[in-house]
Amino acid sequence: MTKIAVLIDSDFEDSEYSEPAEAYRHAGYSLSHIGTQKGKTIEGKHKETSITIDESVRNSSVNDFDALFIPGGYSPDRLRVDESAVGFVKRFVESGKPVLLICHAPQLLITAQVLKGRKITGWKSIIQDIKNAGAEFLDQEVVEDGNLISSRSPRDIPAFIQATLRKLKNSREVLKYGQNC
Amino acid sequence: MTKIAVLIDSDFEDSEYSEPAEAYRHAGYSLSHIGTQKGKTIEGKHKETSITIDESVRNSSVNDFDALFIPGGYSPDRLRVDESAVGFVKRFVESGKPVLLICHAPQLLITAQVLKGRKITGWKSIIQDIKNAGAEFLDQEVVEDGNLISSRSPRDIPAFIQATLRKLKNSREVLKYGQNC
Repeated sequence: MTKIAVLIDSDFEDSEYSEPAEAYRHAGYSLSHIGTQKGKTIEGKHKETSITIDESVRNSSVNDFDALFIPGGYSPDRLRVDESAVGFVKRFVESGKPVLLICHAPQLLITAQVLKGRKITGWKSIIQDIKNAGAEFLDQEVVEDGNLISSRSPRDIPAFIQATLRKLKNSREVLKYGQNC
Repeated sequence: MTKIAVLIDSDFEDSEYSEPAEAYRHAGYSLSHIGTQKGKTIEGKHKETSITIDESVRNSSVNDFDALFIPGGYSPDRLRVDESAVGFVKRFVESGKPVLLICHAPQLLITAQVLKGRKITGWKSIIQDIKNAGAEFLDQEVVEDGNLISSRSPRDIPAFIQATLRKLKNSREVLKYGQNC
C-alpha cells in the first residue's frame, strides 16, 4: 500500500490538512502523521481538527514512505526550527518521491536549502522568501516541477487534490511496473 | 512628545508587545497602534492581550512618528501580504529613524527588500530567510546596526527593552538638539 508521510505540527491550516487527507484515504492511501513528538496531540489554527502524531520525525526514514505531504498554516514555521524535520524534508526532496506542498509548506524547503532553480508556488506572505531562495515563484493554483507539487492557499484545495492524486497514481504505477516498462 | 508607531496584527506574541510597550509608556513615550484596519480589535497568540488599532497603515505617514516598533509572533506574516504595511516599513527603514524588531519582525523587512547588507537577528525559524535576503544574521540577544535594533525571542525582552530605550533616548536628543551640536 502506498504510504504518505504527513509532516505536521500545531497551528496547521485545518482545511489544508483535512480535505486532502480525506481524499488520499478515500483513494486507498495510508497516512502516517510525523511530528516532533510521537503521541503528541496537535490542533489546527481554527481548532476544528486534532491529530495524534504517529511517529517522531527523528525516528522516521524516507525509505518507509512513498510520498510526503506538508500542510500549511503556521505548522511549517514551527517545524523549520527542528533539525530532524528539516533533514527529513531535504532527503525526501532529494529522493525524487512526490512532495506535496500547500500554503506555507515551502518554508521548510527554504530552510532545507533545496529550492534553488525549482519552480514553486505558495502563500503570498512568503513570495519574497521563495524568490530569495533561488526558486521561481509562479502565481498559479497548482505548480508541478519534477517531484514537487505546490498550491497557494485553501482556495486551491480542489485543484491541489486533483493534481496530487494524479501524481500519486503515476508514482504508484512507476513503483509497481518500473519507470521504463 | 516622542511618538512610536507599533505595527501590529492578530496573533502577535503577547509578551513581545506588552512588555516593551509598558516600558516605553513608563519612559514617557506615546504609542500609536497601526494596522490593516482602524478600530479593529486584535488579540495575541496566547489571548492574553487585546489591542484596538488606532489608525490604518494606509492612512499613516512616517513623518508622524519618531520610531517604529514591530512585535513578533505571526503578526508580521499577516502584515507582509499588505502592500501598505510593506511600503510603510520600507519608508521607515529608509528614513533613518529607529526601527525596533523582535522575533518574526524581520519578515516585513524581507518583503520590503531593505535588509541587504544589514546586520540583524530574529527568531530561528527565519534565519535562512534573513540570510537569503542578503543580510548578516547574528545569534545575539540584541543586534544594533544603524537605525535597526533587533532581538530573537521573548527570552531577549529585558535586553531588547534596555537597548531600545537607549536608542530612543539618543534619537530624542538628536531631534531636540540636532546631530552636530
